[in-house]
Amino acid sequence: MNYSCSRYELKCNDCGKRFGNQPLSACPDCLAPLEVAYDLDAVRGIFTRENIAAGPPSIWRYAALLPIPDGFQPDLPVGFTPLIHAKNLGKRIGATNLYVKNDAVCFPTLSFKDRVVSVALANAQRFGFETVGCSSTGNLANSVAAQAARLGIKACILVPADLEAAKILNTQVYGARLVRIDGNYDHVNRLCSQIADEYTWGFVNVNLRPYYAEGSKTVGYEIAEKLGWKLPDNVVVPMAGGSLIRKIRKAFQELIYLGLVEEKHVRFFGAQATGCSPIATAVKQGTEDVQPQKPNTIARSLAIGNPADGPAAAKMIRDSGGWAEDVSDVEIVSGMQELAETEGIFTETAGGVTTAVTARLYAHGRILPDEITVACITGNGLKTTDSLVGHYAEERAIRPRLADFGDYLRELEGAQELAVAGDIHGN
Amino acid sequence: MNYSCSRYELKCNDCGKRFGNQPLSACPDCLAPLEVAYDLDAVRGIFTRENIAAGPPSIWRYAALLPIPDGFQPDLPVGFTPLIHAKNLGKRIGATNLYVKNDAVCFPTLSFKDRVVSVALANAQRFGFETVGCSSTGNLANSVAAQAARLGIKACILVPADLEAAKILNTQVYGARLVRIDGNYDHVNRLCSQIADEYTWGFVNVNLRPYYAEGSKTVGYEIAEKLGWKLPDNVVVPMAGGSLIRKIRKAFQELIYLGLVEEKHVRFFGAQATGCSPIATAVKQGTEDVQPQKPNTIARSLAIGNPADGPAAAKMIRDSGGWAEDVSDVEIVSGMQELAETEGIFTETAGGVTTAVTARLYAHGRILPDEITVACITGNGLKTTDSLVGHYAEERAIRPRLADFGDYLRELEGAQELAVAGDIHGN
Repeated sequence: MNYSCSRYELKCNDCGKRFGNQPLSACPDCLAPLEVAYDLDAVRGIFTRENIAAGPPSIWRYAALLPIPDGFQPDLPVGFTPLIHAKNLGKRIGATNLYVKNDAVCFPTLSFKDRVVSVALANAQRFGFETVGCSSTGNLANSVAAQAARLGIKACILVPADLEAAKILNTQVYGARLVRIDGNYDHVNRLCSQIADEYTWGFVNVNLRPYYAEGSKTVGYEIAEKLGWKLPDNVVVPMAGGSLIRKIRKAFQELIYLGLVEEKHVRFFGAQATGCSPIATAVKQGTEDVQPQKPNTIARSLAIGNPADGPAAAKMIRDSGGWAEDVSDVEIVSGMQELAETEGIFTETAGGVTTAVTARLYAHGRILPDEITVACITGNGLKTTDSLVGHYAEERAIRPRLADFGDYLRELEGAQELAVAGDIHGN
Repeated sequence: MNYSCSRYELKCNDCGKRFGNQPLSACPDCLAPLEVAYDLDAVRGIFTRENIAAGPPSIWRYAALLPIPDGFQPDLPVGFTPLIHAKNLGKRIGATNLYVKNDAVCFPTLSFKDRVVSVALANAQRFGFETVGCSSTGNLANSVAAQAARLGIKACILVPADLEAAKILNTQVYGARLVRIDGNYDHVNRLCSQIADEYTWGFVNVNLRPYYAEGSKTVGYEIAEKLGWKLPDNVVVPMAGGSLIRKIRKAFQELIYLGLVEEKHVRFFGAQATGCSPIATAVKQGTEDVQPQKPNTIARSLAIGNPADGPAAAKMIRDSGGWAEDVSDVEIVSGMQELAETEGIFTETAGGVTTAVTARLYAHGRILPDEITVACITGNGLKTTDSLVGHYAEERAIRPRLADFGDYLRELEGAQELAVAGDIHGN
């Protein structure tokens, strides 16, 4: 089960030993995580602005720097989501060059996990796995279930028992086997590692993890391309396991090395919920010693108390001159509302984390107003509607008559005047 | 408030009278609906395959044939959604050349309504409306609320009081004023017409309707472009008001006239829920006399009992040699599940209608297996999760231990063997 490829192979982050291509996530010698290493010079003539522009409007336009089998025929047009100039949000929080990378509309399952899953499943097929699985806080479950259905691979997905209803349904509907585990994500993840040792299954975020994680690089490529092949000054990224932020940096470094963008020092900022902030806490304390936490936050897609890539993420954030912040559940909901009200983008709780943290970074002067800054929105608000329950009153229904509508408007205006007069928070 | 434009203007469908560009939906003389008429020859040199390919990955690549003001700067990258070769669904229902047009991932609010709203709001701004509104079965409400928020226009949205919770929340979150009306969509719609006469508001599907409806043409353009500038043999389209199916045909006719595709006779098939099937009933009865119905179906986004474009849609379907079908609520849920299980696409109830109707059209031999057929999926399943409540059992949670997982799998296998042995419907 070891496949050769001239473009890339697995390499130990610590000892540098190389392993070809196989379903393996850690170095047997030093136990450090493996990463996909590329022969960048070999793709220099292929991975060009022109070739990319001529490619499909999906992540597969960057195929030359993704760890997929030679001759791989992409099945689905994943990714290539909008990058929006967030002028209105910017006005509210004091930013003139703020952009939002919007994976809330990622194809097929409305989160950035679609990117990593499509790369993982390409490798699951190459390695001949008939069943794939994952431990998930929800978005990953949705994406594995949907893409496995399309590819005709069996899926067995393990989630914490208390997951949001919409994320559970959005896994079951694809016909996947969903196993609810009595515990939090860290319990589920540990169990998956044990299952991967015992059964010959491809776990996208366990034994296929090095390939899987590379899919996140496409967020970085898309940011650069959609900025007109420029790098931003700052990137704000939500952190669960800590992988996405590192892979965006890897993408930027590859683009610099290959000359697709000019060299630039990009600062990376991490966003977490206060109720699960092991990486942000480490960054604030100036350490890479990430202390596990027991998660307690509505941002369940970020609720990983013992993040696999936490220490590396903390280090790279500090090395870049960036910072990390964490926000309360109340601020998370406000962040979701703020992004919706200003930019018309409805994001899930994790996006509320990113938005609220971004606002704070501007408020504290850690990001300056005119710096080009990209905030990464990674999932859709329709998956976490529970978090908004009770935030909007159900108003009485009115009869379908013009006179009733007029009365209703007058009542509203009266209420607003009263509210303004009494300095009460109105509508 | 009458704006001149060399490319297009409003024209009466019946008497042919022209009206320039103004917020007006019906001919004052003969009361027939107005439609946007283009000087197609004037855009012949502009609306080319090459120019379109060089345009942005959004509906604005087709701007030359959209009724937007000259010099209009698109604000958001709406549309340009995937067209998927539905190989698995095809296998299940006996089709080899079936494609799915997937507006379940349309930017920004996950339905094809984003297309029409962006064109409508461009006109609302041109005509100087400070408040926009709509009557809606849900998707339109979401899109108007989101896009108005982004553009900084006030929005007042009227919906039937019993709308799905997710669609209500997905309107309120953008800060729009949502007015619940005690009645069905047809009541709401009538009230909106009266409001539009009384207040100087821009109602996207009332006084801005001719512009609004043109946004639907982009579905047709995208289908043709993504098929490699070819027209399909058949298109299956869900019908609420009956506008979308007509505009897809208009798009195809324009493409033929301008030489972007070869002339081809395309057959159009309409899909409705049995609980609200006025157009399908008329088609089956061989008449254009569409009898209003009182809607009673879980496909609430299609629940328009008195469809504005019903007679015209019925006529064009029959003229094309197509057909219309309607399916029960049970079949709608099965259709949603079938599309999810085979293609990994989670659609709302309306998409279940389209999928179930498509299956029936193949089963009845109205569409032949190898004909190139496109089924239009217009919205996302996360908006109508209520329809699936009770369809998936909540299984007991297991402890995070390998032994417990093994027991669980063995139990499952046992249950499946029993199910097979006893011919009971298992997992």
